[in-house]
Amino acid sequence: MSEATRDIEALIELMARLPGLGPRSARRAVLHLIKKRGQVMGPLAEAMATVAASARECATCGNIGTADICDICRDDRRATGEICVVEDVADLWAMERGQAFKGRYHVLGGTLSALDAVGPEDLGIPKLLTRIRDESIGEVILALNATVDGQTTAHYIADALEGTGVAVTSLAQGVPIGGELDYLDDGTIQAALRARKRL
Amino acid sequence: MSEATRDIEALIELMARLPGLGPRSARRAVLHLIKKRGQVMGPLAEAMATVAASARECATCGNIGTADICDICRDDRRATGEICVVEDVADLWAMERGQAFKGRYHVLGGTLSALDAVGPEDLGIPKLLTRIRDESIGEVILALNATVDGQTTAHYIADALEGTGVAVTSLAQGVPIGGELDYLDDGTIQAALRARKRL
Repeated sequence: MSEATRDIEALIELMARLPGLGPRSARRAVLHLIKKRGQVMGPLAEAMATVAASARECATCGNIGTADICDICRDDRRATGEICVVEDVADLWAMERGQAFKGRYHVLGGTLSALDAVGPEDLGIPKLLTRIRDESIGEVILALNATVDGQTTAHYIADALEGTGVAVTSLAQGVPIGGELDYLDDGTIQAALRARKRL
Repeated sequence: MSEATRDIEALIELMARLPGLGPRSARRAVLHLIKKRGQVMGPLAEAMATVAASARECATCGNIGTADICDICRDDRRATGEICVVEDVADLWAMERGQAFKGRYHVLGGTLSALDAVGPEDLGIPKLLTRIRDESIGEVILALNATVDGQTTAHYIADALEGTGVAVTSLAQGVPIGGELDYLDDGTIQAALRARKRL
């Protein structure tokens, strides 16, 4: 096997490490890239090198940006009294796509998990509590996933903030917009019924 | 939106153009890359730039390599009297993984298609016929996909070679290794029965 094929094989192997791609789809993606090497592959390689060189985590909230402090933390127009706590940067991005939250964020980078031995220190929860005190936060919105670990983490943070006078809220649970009752699980229907509201 | 996010957004948009990735999975892949920017993202960007700069199609057979003539066409140890005709470079790679064919290839880059107005010239079939004559090929193996367009193309090439004395063969059809009869379509079972052989 010559250099040529070895380079291509190496690229396929690296692509196959991406989530959602296996060896077969990585091969297909690389072949597509080679066919469109002018329009797609060159720009993609460049964009990747740029981001690889510049991306870093925000020292304050854990969001990903290019500076030590991210755009959201630096933005004066955003409300300073509210912190939205999310598990992952992907969740932060999802919240931002919603365009409903105008405060700041805090990315935990995971959830508490007895099984995986993830404790409060591993998630920087002490740092979050310090931040809440130092930035005189009035409301903490827990936007954690509706999984067992997510809810355990939410309860832990709520407990830690008890007696501090900080309002702790969480996202409402109910029927998703466009959702059909017939396709929803029992738990969601129960939650939606309990939280019903007057029209 | 600052430069930071714009760079990341641009990367996500480029990734989403890969086959098998949509906007959501591209986001997930980019986030994964950013988290592992040292181990995966840097090397991936580099590998991509290398291949983008060096990859080209073989002037003889259409395979992808880094030189004007690919490794297979340059390899003296490969049989010169046989050409295996495939639709796409991916098919050539699949044949090579099989390690059964020791001759040379010819990549058509598609199939004849009346619907998409793809004619013999678009696939370089005249070039293939010239090659068969010039390289004094004894056997042409048609390894085209078992689709309607693939079989139409196979018949067209077989017709074009009639009377030239060149043996035209195609891959056998039958039960795949490890295949279960119950899961096979009727056409495959019929083909396998017609082509049955004495043990």
